[in-house]
Amino acid sequence: MKQQLRSEDELLKLISRELPSPGPEVLAGIGDDCAVISSSHQSGHLELLKIDALVEGVHFVKGTPWNKVGWKALCRPISDIAAMGGSPHHALITVAAPPHWGSTEWRSLYRGIGKAAREFGVSVVGGETARSPGPLFLSVTLTGNVPKQNLKLRSGARPGDLICVTGKLGGSFKGGRHLNFQPRVAEGRWLGGEKGITAMMDLSDGLGSDLPKLANSSGCSFRLASDGLPLNRGCSFHEGVSDGEDYELLLTIAPKSWPSIQQRWNVASRNVSLTPVGVVLPLGEKSSLLPTGFDHMNPITC
Amino acid sequence: MKQQLRSEDELLKLISRELPSPGPEVLAGIGDDCAVISSSHQSGHLELLKIDALVEGVHFVKGTPWNKVGWKALCRPISDIAAMGGSPHHALITVAAPPHWGSTEWRSLYRGIGKAAREFGVSVVGGETARSPGPLFLSVTLTGNVPKQNLKLRSGARPGDLICVTGKLGGSFKGGRHLNFQPRVAEGRWLGGEKGITAMMDLSDGLGSDLPKLANSSGCSFRLASDGLPLNRGCSFHEGVSDGEDYELLLTIAPKSWPSIQQRWNVASRNVSLTPVGVVLPLGEKSSLLPTGFDHMNPITC
Repeated sequence: MKQQLRSEDELLKLISRELPSPGPEVLAGIGDDCAVISSSHQSGHLELLKIDALVEGVHFVKGTPWNKVGWKALCRPISDIAAMGGSPHHALITVAAPPHWGSTEWRSLYRGIGKAAREFGVSVVGGETARSPGPLFLSVTLTGNVPKQNLKLRSGARPGDLICVTGKLGGSFKGGRHLNFQPRVAEGRWLGGEKGITAMMDLSDGLGSDLPKLANSSGCSFRLASDGLPLNRGCSFHEGVSDGEDYELLLTIAPKSWPSIQQRWNVASRNVSLTPVGVVLPLGEKSSLLPTGFDHMNPITC
Repeated sequence: MKQQLRSEDELLKLISRELPSPGPEVLAGIGDDCAVISSSHQSGHLELLKIDALVEGVHFVKGTPWNKVGWKALCRPISDIAAMGGSPHHALITVAAPPHWGSTEWRSLYRGIGKAAREFGVSVVGGETARSPGPLFLSVTLTGNVPKQNLKLRSGARPGDLICVTGKLGGSFKGGRHLNFQPRVAEGRWLGGEKGITAMMDLSDGLGSDLPKLANSSGCSFRLASDGLPLNRGCSFHEGVSDGEDYELLLTIAPKSWPSIQQRWNVASRNVSLTPVGVVLPLGEKSSLLPTGFDHMNPITC
């Protein structure tokens, strides 16, 4: 009898059992936002590696302009590198395109990719093109690096830390923001340099899914304030927590560092807010119950 | 009116026009087997990056055992790293799987991936899983490195060099060899250490397609001997040249280095042959006309 998988976690466990243990240079691997590699040939820096996929009908609906798909395809892994405190460098892109694709579609897709590459200083260094008998598939690998002392992981949050988010949340699909969001690269690099930031990740699945993941990695519980969540115009608290695809940064800050970080953030970052939305609790305390966010294993229904 | 693309070359040119120029650290980029990066944080080594895709119905037929698809998916980019003289290190794998996939299919696929990872010392450090509304789509990124002085490119062949291949050619689809080939990692690393090897690449599309690419990159012509091609049992010269998916190494050797390389190869490599099959000619001389090999932009017809 066929066994169905109940969750992505179960799938990750199944996959990991079939693979050899990673080498000692792999500081973070499967299950983290990016892989983190400490190479003996590198000095003072860690290598970051991220792969990400977009599937037509799963990550974007049919009829989406191809240049917007291109922008989103490169900006998603850029957001992951930013969330580690790192800088993006080199991209490799695989496209499996439907048979009817001609130069107009390819040009439009790569115009969007090129725009994002220019804006965030990424070199596209390779790729692979193939025909798809079905929908468009895009896979983007992005490398980056981060000074050793600046690396931020999901796992460093401690009870008492403030939970903060950059920017505003919710309505990403409704407003089309999931196709033209700005990954928080400068902000991530700035926050990476702050010792008081104890954990960081990006908000791709929505606060309701991503905050439990961060808390789980850190071995903590959490309480989210019921008001004060920075929301995009027209969005409810429920939408702000569960819509997903915000690509803002979620981070935790040691309370004694907050006043200084808040003050300097307001000088350094003119356009993007940094808002406390909750507090980290000791494991065992009851976490806030949140509506969960977007699951990329299921098709878009919007 | 819709413009159709006539070749992969035309597509690469179109794509490159939309992208920013790569940074000065990118020694080889789009159009090469692997990207080659010279990082200021690395000493004595170059970073190699390769992305590769497998699409059901394009790179393998429906009904292929998933463990064999997994082996092939990881061994293809391993072969590319080997062809630069390098060692494979870290893999990132994206799988977009049809909705009916359960634990049996996932386990089988990753069993094949895990077997290849173990055999060639690769750590799988990350990935992405998604649902595919169509066929299975697999994208594998592999990093590697190579000592600076060992890097082999397609572009170093000079008139008078011997053209050689490792192993035997032809019949890869007929015999199922395209699903369980051995990438030439130890051989590539050995050849990388030989100064007399002037150019190298792997034979994925068949000698008839790949030799003209090597000659073109080197600004040379070539002559292939009409006999003496090392063929798999039951294969004709035509099949040996055009079947593709051999995953053997194609290389050029300065003639004065050949006797010494030949002698030491026979000691170092007990099971794999190294056979001269032709000679590099000055540009302008007429190259041998060869049947071209496998084109991954078109579906498999076997």
